[in-house]
Amino acid sequence: MPIERKVLLTQSEDHTGLIAQITHICFKHGLNIIKNDEFVDREHHQFFMRTELEGVFNDQLLLDDLNQSLSKKTAHRLTTATRKRIVIMVTKEPHCLGELLMKSLYGALNADIVAVIGNHTTLEELTEKFDIPFHYITHENLSREQQEDNIQQIIAGYKPDYIVLAKYMRILTPSFVEQYNNRIINIHHSFLPAFIGARPYHQAYARGVKIIGATAHFVNNDLDEGPIISQDVTRVDHRHTAEEMAQAGRQVEESVLLHALQQVTNEKVFVYENRTVVFD
Amino acid sequence: MPIERKVLLTQSEDHTGLIAQITHICFKHGLNIIKNDEFVDREHHQFFMRTELEGVFNDQLLLDDLNQSLSKKTAHRLTTATRKRIVIMVTKEPHCLGELLMKSLYGALNADIVAVIGNHTTLEELTEKFDIPFHYITHENLSREQQEDNIQQIIAGYKPDYIVLAKYMRILTPSFVEQYNNRIINIHHSFLPAFIGARPYHQAYARGVKIIGATAHFVNNDLDEGPIISQDVTRVDHRHTAEEMAQAGRQVEESVLLHALQQVTNEKVFVYENRTVVFD
Amino acid sequence: MPIERKVLLTQSEDHTGLIAQITHICFKHGLNIIKNDEFVDREHHQFFMRTELEGVFNDQLLLDDLNQSLSKKTAHRLTTATRKRIVIMVTKEPHCLGELLMKSLYGALNADIVAVIGNHTTLEELTEKFDIPFHYITHENLSREQQEDNIQQIIAGYKPDYIVLAKYMRILTPSFVEQYNNRIINIHHSFLPAFIGARPYHQAYARGVKIIGATAHFVNNDLDEGPIISQDVTRVDHRHTAEEMAQAGRQVEESVLLHALQQVTNEKVFVYENRTVVFD
Amino acid sequence: MPIERKVLLTQSEDHTGLIAQITHICFKHGLNIIKNDEFVDREHHQFFMRTELEGVFNDQLLLDDLNQSLSKKTAHRLTTATRKRIVIMVTKEPHCLGELLMKSLYGALNADIVAVIGNHTTLEELTEKFDIPFHYITHENLSREQQEDNIQQIIAGYKPDYIVLAKYMRILTPSFVEQYNNRIINIHHSFLPAFIGARPYHQAYARGVKIIGATAHFVNNDLDEGPIISQDVTRVDHRHTAEEMAQAGRQVEESVLLHALQQVTNEKVFVYENRTVVFD
Repeated sequence: MPIERKVLLTQSEDHTGLIAQITHICFKHGLNIIKNDEFVDREHHQFFMRTELEGVFNDQLLLDDLNQSLSKKTAHRLTTATRKRIVIMVTKEPHCLGELLMKSLYGALNADIVAVIGNHTTLEELTEKFDIPFHYITHENLSREQQEDNIQQIIAGYKPDYIVLAKYMRILTPSFVEQYNNRIINIHHSFLPAFIGARPYHQAYARGVKIIGATAHFVNNDLDEGPIISQDVTRVDHRHTAEEMAQAGRQVEESVLLHALQQVTNEKVFVYENRTVVFD
Repeated sequence: MPIERKVLLTQSEDHTGLIAQITHICFKHGLNIIKNDEFVDREHHQFFMRTELEGVFNDQLLLDDLNQSLSKKTAHRLTTATRKRIVIMVTKEPHCLGELLMKSLYGALNADIVAVIGNHTTLEELTEKFDIPFHYITHENLSREQQEDNIQQIIAGYKPDYIVLAKYMRILTPSFVEQYNNRIINIHHSFLPAFIGARPYHQAYARGVKIIGATAHFVNNDLDEGPIISQDVTRVDHRHTAEEMAQAGRQVEESVLLHALQQVTNEKVFVYENRTVVFD
Repeated sequence: MPIERKVLLTQSEDHTGLIAQITHICFKHGLNIIKNDEFVDREHHQFFMRTELEGVFNDQLLLDDLNQSLSKKTAHRLTTATRKRIVIMVTKEPHCLGELLMKSLYGALNADIVAVIGNHTTLEELTEKFDIPFHYITHENLSREQQEDNIQQIIAGYKPDYIVLAKYMRILTPSFVEQYNNRIINIHHSFLPAFIGARPYHQAYARGVKIIGATAHFVNNDLDEGPIISQDVTRVDHRHTAEEMAQAGRQVEESVLLHALQQVTNEKVFVYENRTVVFD
Repeated sequence: MPIERKVLLTQSEDHTGLIAQITHICFKHGLNIIKNDEFVDREHHQFFMRTELEGVFNDQLLLDDLNQSLSKKTAHRLTTATRKRIVIMVTKEPHCLGELLMKSLYGALNADIVAVIGNHTTLEELTEKFDIPFHYITHENLSREQQEDNIQQIIAGYKPDYIVLAKYMRILTPSFVEQYNNRIINIHHSFLPAFIGARPYHQAYARGVKIIGATAHFVNNDLDEGPIISQDVTRVDHRHTAEEMAQAGRQVEESVLLHALQQVTNEKVFVYENRTVVFD
């Protein structure tokens, strides 16, 4: 039997002895711990552990052992680091799509982009350069639900692990979001202070901000905007026009989205209580 | 007559030939331009120039020449790089005050702290280590106006160039702010996204933010919070407790406030239309 | 006659009145100054100015006026912001080439990539996705001079403004470099402290560095490595393997090279005395 | 018996089951794991674990249990998070000393500065503002060994945990360094590329670097400069004079030194093979 490397993800109510119990079971199975990251949220009494294991695996037996010896409130997941499958949704802006296509191509993103869905045809040509199918699903003359039904049919055919909104500029309905709980990832610009309403870069320019940021997050139907995965900022100053601020914002958007996907596809992200634990 | 170095600040409605006219007059006065920074806000047709000059100055003659040859809508200011006078207002937190006291002491801040005013006595001992007078002006049993009157009397005695709110935790009345137009500088934490209401670091923790920021700005009575001078951020993650996030926030607050004051005291900041031009 | 926007670049021995003279001549020609950046190196008595002008241009008359009224030691260059022509040289690593291809495609880089030259065929397929000619110029069984002659013939046919070494892993001869003075741009990793010799990332790992950097610079035959255009760093820690450090290094390499080219192709970079002035 | 919080540090040759064994013993002792960080250097087969424990401790019994059940090649250390004792050595520059004095004063550094030793009297007044003894130990008319003997006598009286070189500008002898293995911490500027020889900031200016860095490291007698604890950089450009680059360098030096000491005094740093593991 071959020696493999897998990741064991454990999320549990916290109690004394959890690390000892889990690592002891791994030890009994002859598995070597390559890397172990652990975090306890003391406020919510939640325990998180990510364990990279090497050895000869009997997956079912290992999971059974873990589940028997630990309380029922513990969830284990054993995953292999195979490349994840991603469907990307876009509108017209190329920067985030372009970054993901390129990084996936030569392996800097541990994921295959299996399809791109656009509500405009603007990015069809870019997508097809990379031999990836592009699906044009218009929203014109359709109710929001009808258009989303069309999108869901396309997605269903690809069985993706994650759906990435790479500057998809339409709001998704709660029922769409519910279909893919903690599996939709979005990117958007962020400001200090925040600007509400139209033309945020024009507001940021008018206000003379010195920093432009971006936030990648899971989309859910909770308050706010869903659990944050990654954030970064870049500097601007009075010499930047609103358009130049937008360009700086696009550069940080694409790098934050890439970073978030690198974390997610390498099984480094837990979600709970509208926040994330990211073992990076 | 001695060779001196001075800074000429010009703010004007923009029109063709301004740089040529101003630099020509400086040239006629035998002044050498050490460093020239210039910016035009094309949207508001505003022109800003900061000119470091070296030579033998006849201040009045130079300003007269500038005012005669240029339109009346132009404001010139000729300043020497003498150390500015600063009064600091505090409540209980030591980090910003401590940073400014230390940097002023050995010259990393081009300003003398002439007095510290506190609405608590907590920071009296720290202030007096540096042989600087500390004035305890309580707000207890006083109306907001009465307390501010007491503060203004103290400030008046020191004739400061700027008033720095180094974590002064009371809101100032519009009439107080009006007394010191674009001369009050404040520092506060900033988040992506912004959090409104009490205990912002607990909200930031609950939301799992990955970045904590700080903003230094002038205080005025306009909408929002006044023109931004400087901003910066620092990284946090799920392992930071709310208190550790607050500590990270304090470190970035003190460095942003210092940076803003370095820019302001070196005459590098223009204010207009609720925004700043910072020639750094 | 149409209203155009052009950039006037002036490099000169410094003397009093230069800004006044130049801006006065622009004023006489009815040209409006959109943006003016100026720098004086007081140590070397060198003056640099970048002036964005708008109006109706008579190029020759303007340059004649400038040359007549200013000393002979002044060099002026008037350029339009047309897209520059770039030839990229590569070996096997895709990250820098991929970044430039993508950014050029949708306009985030103000340059057309007119050809890619590789001493291996590894990146031919990537290049041709973007409908750009790829020239395979082997170094095998050839002297360095013979291979470079072959490269120069290819380059000559494209008349590029700049040659970009996007991880081209062979050292160029002084005579090749001389052909393209201050027109060859290179990118390489940088460390604190520096590591000399083979496998630098393994040395960096062994040394436990916390920061990985990259430097983009012009290639010349002077001491060291030529004038630095742009630098940046990224954080690593003990958990990064040498390979993961190299991957972090690649990400910062591609973004630094892009940034350097954005500055160069927008006419924001002066070179002198083995250093640069970058008006960003 | 009171509930306490302590840190267990384990360094060991790596073998399967280590985490299980250690955490199991902690579990048997009724100790709750608050926070656990673990790292395996697969190349050197070294295992590192930092375990924050809470409960009623019997230190000797716990360490005995750990030592008995684990191999002899394992070193355990159980420490309480009491404030560490630090002696600071200085010459004339105030910035690093000032930062540590201020941060120690109000608790942002988990250490008491028990004494400052200077080979000049320049910083005596600053030190004594904080009611800390300053010892002037001249190097004039003394051999290096004689001066160091005088220093060691002073140090011995204070029994410090760490000795911090806060811009102490003399080279220490190997025999001095040996006395305090992995207990001397130094800060110095760093450049990309590195500059060897005198006046590094003038070289950096001449070379037009865009980034200035600082490195905090342990001092030992190995090759290079000892294990790196923390590094950071700041941006500069052509407008910075050599003196302004030095000032930017000083700001990053003081913040990197502070950060390194925060990590060290909170027992987050392991040293081995001329590198560090920093659990931050």
